[in-house]
Amino acid sequence: MERIESVKNPKVKQWKKLHTKKEREATGTFIIEGFHLVEEALKKKEQIRDIIVSEEVNLPATWNLDQVNMKLVTKDVMKAISDTETPQGVAAICEMQIPKSTESWTKILLVDSVQDPGNLGTIIRTADAAGVDGVVLGEGTVDHYNSKVIRSSQGSLFHLPIIKGDLLSWIDQQNENGTPVYGTSLQNGVSYKEISPSAQFCLLIGNEGSGVDEGLLQKTTKNLYIPIYGEAESLNVAIATGILLYHLHG
Amino acid sequence: MERIESVKNPKVKQWKKLHTKKEREATGTFIIEGFHLVEEALKKKEQIRDIIVSEEVNLPATWNLDQVNMKLVTKDVMKAISDTETPQGVAAICEMQIPKSTESWTKILLVDSVQDPGNLGTIIRTADAAGVDGVVLGEGTVDHYNSKVIRSSQGSLFHLPIIKGDLLSWIDQQNENGTPVYGTSLQNGVSYKEISPSAQFCLLIGNEGSGVDEGLLQKTTKNLYIPIYGEAESLNVAIATGILLYHLHG
Repeated sequence: MERIESVKNPKVKQWKKLHTKKEREATGTFIIEGFHLVEEALKKKEQIRDIIVSEEVNLPATWNLDQVNMKLVTKDVMKAISDTETPQGVAAICEMQIPKSTESWTKILLVDSVQDPGNLGTIIRTADAAGVDGVVLGEGTVDHYNSKVIRSSQGSLFHLPIIKGDLLSWIDQQNENGTPVYGTSLQNGVSYKEISPSAQFCLLIGNEGSGVDEGLLQKTTKNLYIPIYGEAESLNVAIATGILLYHLHG
Repeated sequence: MERIESVKNPKVKQWKKLHTKKEREATGTFIIEGFHLVEEALKKKEQIRDIIVSEEVNLPATWNLDQVNMKLVTKDVMKAISDTETPQGVAAICEMQIPKSTESWTKILLVDSVQDPGNLGTIIRTADAAGVDGVVLGEGTVDHYNSKVIRSSQGSLFHLPIIKGDLLSWIDQQNENGTPVYGTSLQNGVSYKEISPSAQFCLLIGNEGSGVDEGLLQKTTKNLYIPIYGEAESLNVAIATGILLYHLHG
C-alpha cells in the first residue's frame, strides 16, 4: 500500500483542491470523508478511485476492500485534506456518476437555486426517503459535490441519480408527457391538500429567500402552497419539500 | 443614549457571557442578533431589556423604539458580543418568557434529547407554522436560548410558548386527559398514514441518532413511523416533525 507522509506530496495537493468546484469539474471526481459515507460509496466499488486512511485508524473488518486502491497517510496529511475540525481518519476519492437514462423517472424533483449546502443535502436525503427517482439541479443551485452537501445528504447522494439541467426544458418535456408539474409558491397557489397523490409527478422547489423563479412558475401545471397555521412567515425549504413529497407519494 | 466604546466595559463582558447557558439561566435573559430577530422581538417590547446598535448602522425608520433602552456601541464592541462572522450591527438583550398557563394547549410537541441547535431551531419554526400551541423540551435537549437555535427558529421562538419539562409527567397527564400521545419510532410502530388528524394531540420526537427514549415510548398511545420508499436509512428529525405535524393537523 502506498504511504504518503508529506503534505507537499502532489497527490495531497490535488486532493485538497477537490474542495473547489473547479477542480471537481475538471477531474470528474470528488472527495468524501468519514466512515458512514465511505461505507455507502463502497456499495458501488467501481466509483471509488482511492480510499485514504490515516495510519492510526483501524478500518471495520466487514469492509470488502478487494481491488480498491488504498493510500495510507499520516495524521497531518489527513488533516490537510479534510474540511472537518476532527477528521475521522478515512476519506475517499470518488468518480461522479452520470445516469445513463432519465426516461424511466416517474417521480422527479426539480431544484431551482437552493443555495445553502445543508438544505440541499437534507433535500437529497429526503427525496431519497420519499421514493423520488431523480433530482435535477437548475443553474444557481449549490454544487451537490460540495462536502457539506454530501455530509448532510447522509449518503443519499450515492442512492439517487442527480443531474444538472435546464429546468425550463425539463418542465416543457413533462408537460408534453402529460406528467403534472407542481411548482411551490406563496402567492396564487392552491393548498397542497387539494392535490391527490399520483404515481407520476414532478415537484419544483426554489430558493430559500426568493422562492421559485417567476418564469418557471408560469409553465407549471399548478403551483402549491403549504398553509401556515401559526405566526411563522414560511417553512424551511427542506421541510416544505418533505411535506410535499410525502403528500404527493400518497 | 449611552455610548459604549470599550470591549472591557462590564456591560460588554456580561453580554458576551450570555453565549453561555449558565449566564442565561442565572440572569433570565438571552441575546439575539440581526435585524429580523430584533424586529420580531420588538412586537412584544416589554421582553426587551436593551437594544444594542453599532454606531455605523441605521435602524429602519419603521421601528417604534419609544421606551426601549438603547445602547450605542463601536464596531469592535459589536464584534466582541456577536457570535457571527459578519455581525449585522444590531443585537438585543431579551428576558425569557414563561407561559402563564399550559392548560389551553391542544396541540403539543414534546422534544426528547434533540441535540443539534440547527435542528431544534428548525423544529420550533416548523411547529409554529403547523399551528402547535406549545413545545416542551425534555432533559438532554439543547438549550433553546442558544444563539444557533434562535437563528434557525427565524423568530418563531418569539411566537410559540416553549418550556422545559419532565416528559414522562407530560405524557401521564395527556393520558389522563384522553389526549392521544404519538411517539415516533422505527420499530413496532404504525405508519403515520393510518392515524386520522385530530384537534387535540401530542407528538413526541427524539434524538437524532437514538430516537425517543424507550421508557417514554412505552407510555404513548401509539408510536408512529414514516415509511422509507428509497434507500435512505432515516429522515432528519426536523423533516420528520414537519411531515407528522402537518399530517396530524389535517
